[in-house]
Parts: sequence; structure tokens; C-alpha cells
Amino acid sequence: MKKGNTLFFKTRPRVRSYAAICGSKEKEGVIGNYADITLSDDMYGESTYEKAECKMLSGAISLAVEKGGLTDCDIDAMLSGDLLNQIISASFAARDFEFPFLGLYSACSTMSESMLLSAALVDSGFACNCVAATGSHFASAERQYRYPLELGCTRPPQSQWTVTGAGACVISDAVGKIAITSATLGRVRDWGVTDVNNMGAAMAPAAADTIMRHFKDTGTKPEDYDMIITGDLGALGSRILKDLMWEKSYDISSNHVDCGEIIYKVIEDEFQGGSGAGCSAVVMNSYVFTKMNAGLYKKVLFAATGALLSTVSSGQGESIPCISHAVELESLAAGAQ
Amino acid sequence: MKKGNTLFFKTRPRVRSYAAICGSKEKEGVIGNYADITLSDDMYGESTYEKAECKMLSGAISLAVEKGGLTDCDIDAMLSGDLLNQIISASFAARDFEFPFLGLYSACSTMSESMLLSAALVDSGFACNCVAATGSHFASAERQYRYPLELGCTRPPQSQWTVTGAGACVISDAVGKIAITSATLGRVRDWGVTDVNNMGAAMAPAAADTIMRHFKDTGTKPEDYDMIITGDLGALGSRILKDLMWEKSYDISSNHVDCGEIIYKVIEDEFQGGSGAGCSAVVMNSYVFTKMNAGLYKKVLFAATGALLSTVSSGQGESIPCISHAVELESLAAGAQ
Repeated sequence: MKKGNTLFFKTRPRVRSYAAICGSKEKEGVIGNYADITLSDDMYGESTYEKAECKMLSGAISLAVEKGGLTDCDIDAMLSGDLLNQIISASFAARDFEFPFLGLYSACSTMSESMLLSAALVDSGFACNCVAATGSHFASAERQYRYPLELGCTRPPQSQWTVTGAGACVISDAVGKIAITSATLGRVRDWGVTDVNNMGAAMAPAAADTIMRHFKDTGTKPEDYDMIITGDLGALGSRILKDLMWEKSYDISSNHVDCGEIIYKVIEDEFQGGSGAGCSAVVMNSYVFTKMNAGLYKKVLFAATGALLSTVSSGQGESIPCISHAVELESLAAGAQ
Repeated sequence: MKKGNTLFFKTRPRVRSYAAICGSKEKEGVIGNYADITLSDDMYGESTYEKAECKMLSGAISLAVEKGGLTDCDIDAMLSGDLLNQIISASFAARDFEFPFLGLYSACSTMSESMLLSAALVDSGFACNCVAATGSHFASAERQYRYPLELGCTRPPQSQWTVTGAGACVISDAVGKIAITSATLGRVRDWGVTDVNNMGAAMAPAAADTIMRHFKDTGTKPEDYDMIITGDLGALGSRILKDLMWEKSYDISSNHVDCGEIIYKVIEDEFQGGSGAGCSAVVMNSYVFTKMNAGLYKKVLFAATGALLSTVSSGQGESIPCISHAVELESLAAGAQ
């Protein structure tokens, strides 16, 4: 069933299991105690950053499948994408498995897009278990989108730090204490921001658009949620989102959290916080799902955010089109408040 | 309902309308009389190849919506992707529309992936009308994947020519003479081909894998189809596919056609034929759907094929993982044989 741009899942597909792998810088922060594997060396034993990124993604998928008590044969499809050109991390990770692969690209909103489509496939009986996954790596993103690390370029204060990490979850028709109740499809919003170092400002309008449409379609209000968590707006983008919502009479100041803002412990080089497809992927698939499984959060709206630019589009003077897909999650744990 | 890796659509969603725009070289071939718009200048009035590619894609989507007697308000989602880094053609095309956007990446199998997911969303009642679309441009692909055109590099005989063109169709729960009856999800296959000029050889095993699983899951045989049409294997890849199928006792020699092999009239610079996400997009959304609407083909299996490499993965010595998603189409036209 749908209303507006929101899909309502009658069977409420479950997050059966989840896993996250994160880098050395990320383990210092809030997710350090929740991630399944934390790296001491971000090369992860590989010869290139891209191969390390792929290995994290593949590893997170394997772990999520295993933790769900499943084998590869039980998985109907893997829905994944990443930030690298032609999503090579996801494509090459898919090579490690025998199950089908549906490639997605939604920049840093890939985690919610993959969860949304997985839930739709499970809810409609087209799948019993789908893997939703994504990841990113600081070093592979830097050299693809910005400058070679060796140059040692300084970063402007509005910038964010691409997260090294990957997260995966199994969306299932059976067991699991977290239900996916609905999902709101994102629309591309472009408010004319051209500063590629200011993704938060570029993405905030897309997040606001999706979250407000979600409230409208579902008849909910901000206070119905224990947490309204965005992907990687960072500290600045998060403030812009709250302002944009406030202008439309929605007060999310007390329960809005941004994965990018909370992921790092000390704001140092990373300025506004974390970014990258791996940012919300690791925060959701470690910290948030664990808290929900324990019933500490009852109802969560997860709206990952993506900036759909490329170095070519920016080089040709284009502004940054952005998108945000949202999924509504509910804890079924006994202790849920 | 699903069986194996195949989704069966109980409501048999329809191809309500379709549209294609192709370049000057492409209009000389079989699709010349079927495409809605054929360009005389492949720059399409834009200042860059990338912008021309985006304009074609956006134009094909607008035309498909209009030909379906619909407006933007009637569209529940657009599912699209393309070959450019971060799928900027699709993302920027999505900026032209108010409806939601689900970004996909499946290289040259994007047309069938977008049709497959659109059909799943429509069949399960999550959408009434979805747009499935993709495209490519020879010049933007050359400079991203190969060499600057200005260098005038020679091409090896096993190479193909990236199609300049875009195609879109509206998958709907209502009217339309072409039904989507089932779809088989692709798995990544990698037989170790590393020659980036020999995509046909790299992709043929993925096509064979999907088509054989489709036969198995649906209980059909090659001769049940008027046409088994692959995306862009080219002449060489098509021969390899027939051989691979023959080895497993499937004879598709009489009804197998490849979009890449048939798109160009004269085999000249393009050697093995066409390639690119736009290749199967324009052939399906002009020639094939028009013939099916007229009842000239009753049952068609469309298996687009994608090579999931990037210049980085090839530069790092990786082989080429490939995929093929298949959709089964049936003509409901009175004259269907």
C-alpha cells in the first residue's frame, strides 16, 4: 500500500541481523564498542584503498548473514552500492557471493535506499531475506573526489571526513526485533549549492523535504519518534535541517540526531563530522540497531542523505542535486518504551 | 511470488508507454524509423557531452510519460542509472521532475534492472506508474572509460561502439499491450576476462547464467520465446553466448538476437556492434516494443548485460565482474501470434 510517496509494509519486514566494520579513527567514537570488527590498519591487509573498502563491505555482508543464522543459500538478493565510480566495491563484493545482486547508487543515502527496496521485496513476497549494505573508505574517497592524500591539502571548516567503514543488515520476513513499518521515497532537491566542501548545506533541503512528506503521508508528528536520524549532514547541515523544519512548524530539535555529527569523538580534522555512504551504514548497523534490539529506542525514522554530484558535474559548473530516502523503524523488544 | 531467483508478477504489470531518443549514427540503423527523436548533432544543443546525455535521458522520460497520457503527478517513482561516474545523467535528469527517484547502477543491464524493480513495485501495489530509463553517449563514455576523442586512438577488432541514445518506459498497473510476466535476478559472474575491449566475452557467461536459470525457474524452453534478446554482447559475445548455452543443451541459435549486434547498419568503426546502457534502452523502447504492441512478437525474454568494471579496477589488475538481469515480456495485442 502506498500513500503519497510513502510505502506502507503490511507484513512489517524485520531487521533480522546486522553487522558493521569500521576503521581506526571511527572506533574511537560512539560506535567503537558496537561495531563487529574495528581495524587497526585501514588498509585491512590489502594493497589498495579500494580493495580495503571492498573487503570491509564483503566482510560486513558475510557477518550479517552469519549472525542471522543463515547461509548464502538463504539470501534472495543483495542490494548495495557505494561511492566509488561504477560502484566497484559493491560489484566486486557481490562477486564473493552466489546470491543475486541489485546494484544501487544513491551516494550517501544508499543505506536507506537499499533497506527500502529490500523491505518492499520482502513485504511483497518476492524475497524472504535480502541483504542491504553499503560502505566507504576515507582514502579511496579522497583520491577520487578531492586530492591525492600525499598532497596534504588543508580542508575548509565546512568540510566533513569520509567514514572508513561498512555496514550490512539482513531484511527478513521472519524473526527480528526491529520492524520496518514504512518508507518514504526521496525526490531530488537542488537549492543551488555549488561548494563541494559543504555537503551538509546542499543535502539539508532534501532531508527536510523527505521527512516532512513522511510526516504528512503517515500522519505522524516529530514527537512520535524517539529519534529522527539523518545520514551525514554533519553539524552544520544538521542545524540547517532543524531550521528548515522549524520554518514549516516542525520542531525536531529535541530528537534529531545526525550520524555524521555523532560518529567522531573529537572534532579535529573532520570539522563538521563524518560523511560517506559508510557513515550511516556503520552507525545504524551497530549502535542504533543494538539499542533498538534492547528496546531503548522504540520508534526511529532513518533518513540517509546523498549528494548526487560527480567531479565532472562540479567541474562543469553544476550545482549539487541531493536526495534522502527514509525508512521508519519500530522496536518490538519487550523493553521498548 | 518467487521461485529460485525469478519473481512472478501476478498482476502482470504493463509497459504503458515508451520513448527513445538516439544519435545520428544510430538513426541509420534498424531503430531509425522507430525512435521518437533522432539527433542530427549529438551535442543536442548542449555545451558538453555529459549534458547532452542527460538531456536525452530527461527527454525520453518526458516523452514516455506524455505518450502514456500521464503527467508528472501520476508517476510514483523513476528508476534509473547510467554509465557516468555517480550516475550524473540520471541524477541530473531526476532534478527535472517532481517525482521520487531511485538511483540504480548496473552498467549496461540497467534497463532490465529498472524494469524489473518497477514491475515489482507496481505488482505489489507500491506504485501505479514507474518510469524505467537509462541512456549513454558515445563521447562521454569514450572520455571517461577510454581515451580523449582528440587523440584519435585506433580501436581493436573485438571492441564495440557506445550507443548515443536514451530510452524510457512507463511500467503501469493499468493499460498497455505488453505485459511483464516474470523477471530473473542476475548474479555476478566473472570468468577472468581482463581485456576491457572485449566486453562481449566478459558478459556472455552472466547472460548464459541468467537465461538458463530463467528457463529452469519458469519451466520454459528456448523455443517458447519468439525472441531472446540480450543487451550489448555484440557479434562476438552473442556467438559465445550461443556456444555456452549449446554446451548446456539449450539451443537459442534461431531466436537469439543481441541489441548491440543489430543496432548499427554497417559494421565499420564499431566492429562488434553497439554497447552502452543506451544500447538495449533504445532498441527495446523503439523497435521491440513497437513490434510487440503490433502483436508481431508474442513472447520475448529481455536480458540486458552489464560489465561492472571501472577504470580504477582495471588499472589495479582486476578482471571484469558481469551481470545480467532478465525480464519476460508478453504481447497482449490481438494480432499476437
